[in-house]
Amino acid sequence: MFVVETVKEIREIIKKEKREGKKIGLVPTMGYLHEGHLSLIRKAKEENDFVVVSVFVNPTQFGEGEDYESYPRELERDSKLSQSAGADILFHPSVAEMYPKGYNTYVETYKITDKLCGVSRPGHFKGVTTVVCKLFNIVAPHRAYFGQKDAQQVVVIKQMVRDLNMDIEIIPCPIVREEDGLALSSRNTYLSQEERRSALILSKSLFKAKDMIENGERDALKIKEFIVNNIKTEPLANIDYVEVVDAENLEDIKILNGEVLIALAVKFGNTRLIDNICIKIS
Amino acid sequence: MFVVETVKEIREIIKKEKREGKKIGLVPTMGYLHEGHLSLIRKAKEENDFVVVSVFVNPTQFGEGEDYESYPRELERDSKLSQSAGADILFHPSVAEMYPKGYNTYVETYKITDKLCGVSRPGHFKGVTTVVCKLFNIVAPHRAYFGQKDAQQVVVIKQMVRDLNMDIEIIPCPIVREEDGLALSSRNTYLSQEERRSALILSKSLFKAKDMIENGERDALKIKEFIVNNIKTEPLANIDYVEVVDAENLEDIKILNGEVLIALAVKFGNTRLIDNICIKIS
Repeated sequence: MFVVETVKEIREIIKKEKREGKKIGLVPTMGYLHEGHLSLIRKAKEENDFVVVSVFVNPTQFGEGEDYESYPRELERDSKLSQSAGADILFHPSVAEMYPKGYNTYVETYKITDKLCGVSRPGHFKGVTTVVCKLFNIVAPHRAYFGQKDAQQVVVIKQMVRDLNMDIEIIPCPIVREEDGLALSSRNTYLSQEERRSALILSKSLFKAKDMIENGERDALKIKEFIVNNIKTEPLANIDYVEVVDAENLEDIKILNGEVLIALAVKFGNTRLIDNICIKIS
Repeated sequence: MFVVETVKEIREIIKKEKREGKKIGLVPTMGYLHEGHLSLIRKAKEENDFVVVSVFVNPTQFGEGEDYESYPRELERDSKLSQSAGADILFHPSVAEMYPKGYNTYVETYKITDKLCGVSRPGHFKGVTTVVCKLFNIVAPHRAYFGQKDAQQVVVIKQMVRDLNMDIEIIPCPIVREEDGLALSSRNTYLSQEERRSALILSKSLFKAKDMIENGERDALKIKEFIVNNIKTEPLANIDYVEVVDAENLEDIKILNGEVLIALAVKFGNTRLIDNICIKIS
């Protein structure tokens, strides 16, 4: 049995594996898997004996008017793909299994969730930390794998794990991109052909910003302005934010130093895309 | 080494015990142990191979103007008492160990925390669920023991455990009372002799209410009114609340049925005492 739907069942499976001394890796996803997810699964399989992929479109991390209903779901395809990438089990609980009647507990990391995506998606990270805490408690993995495309999510989850003393190693993995630079996302499927073409401005701007920095630019505002102006050359692009921040605590910075995260969110039509680049200033 | 102060150290000890197949019991306390706590420790020792008692006066569960600073602390005595009751280790972390600089994550159970003690102690249960979640993650016990004197706390923690899929059994233990009926509490030490004598009205009223119910009374309002009027005969008593609720979800009830909790909080001078009685209507 590759797809497991209940907490009880997956717990029994994991306990058995752990009794045999196996290391457990978890790859939490919302499904509609792409090469980015598969890279996480492969990495998890390299570093652990038993890999659980969870596929759960988590209602509590979607705001009103967001795409919870329309978020693409294709379990059979996800099942085949994750199996071929090395997953040992796919955990696919129902919403009622995860949030039964009378459910009322939430995990919230404050402050770093007020920035970047937290501004236009209030409550989003509260849903993320809650569901990830639950998945961590259900699967009790040694390591969990997250894509660096959701850079803020990685920072938030690391803080939750540290703050709540969860004994789990968080492994961020690099963004996987299409050949033309577009960061892989399950939401790319929403894009029209024209929007898809316009969206290339995101990675292009980030790569050019990286060049500027490699050529010595250290002024955060100049880099931000360059990216904003560059994106604005695309009439279909509607900027949500472009920020240059400290990669560890997401605080604004003026002068680039240490690990720097350049993160952005831009809408093309109804589709909100995010992308980022992380640069170590030496 | 009986007293352990760091997360790292206790984790190593627990992992070693678990590798040997031992069952772990946790008794979370704020210290200044009395016979109530010791009954939890003894019960934990009966049901588990290795018992951890935590002693941590948790700042996040005290409101402004409450007794965080003055809460009695006496570690050496706690250490001896818990050891004699069967504890294998006492975990006594510093505030900085539990809430290091930049700490920002909280666990909150909603709705059932708005009632009873939640009304006059806003934020109290958020502090409780947060610290208990942390202790559960640090110690990773099979079972955790809580006194039924904090009846709402037991309900809240059970809900948190259920909601967040924590794989831990919560064991509530009966209230331990002085011979004259006063429920044991570390806060009893605050009472003047006169207040101590007045405070007996709490258990007396609860026991009389129990008699009423055993004699057939099923009207929640009548029971509540009886208790309120009875307590008001003590001039030093200042009622915070007296409630007759469903023991499982803390919802108000009109007609007694199933498991009923009669809970109260009353101030004597600056000291706020709680007490309760749980009755199964058959």
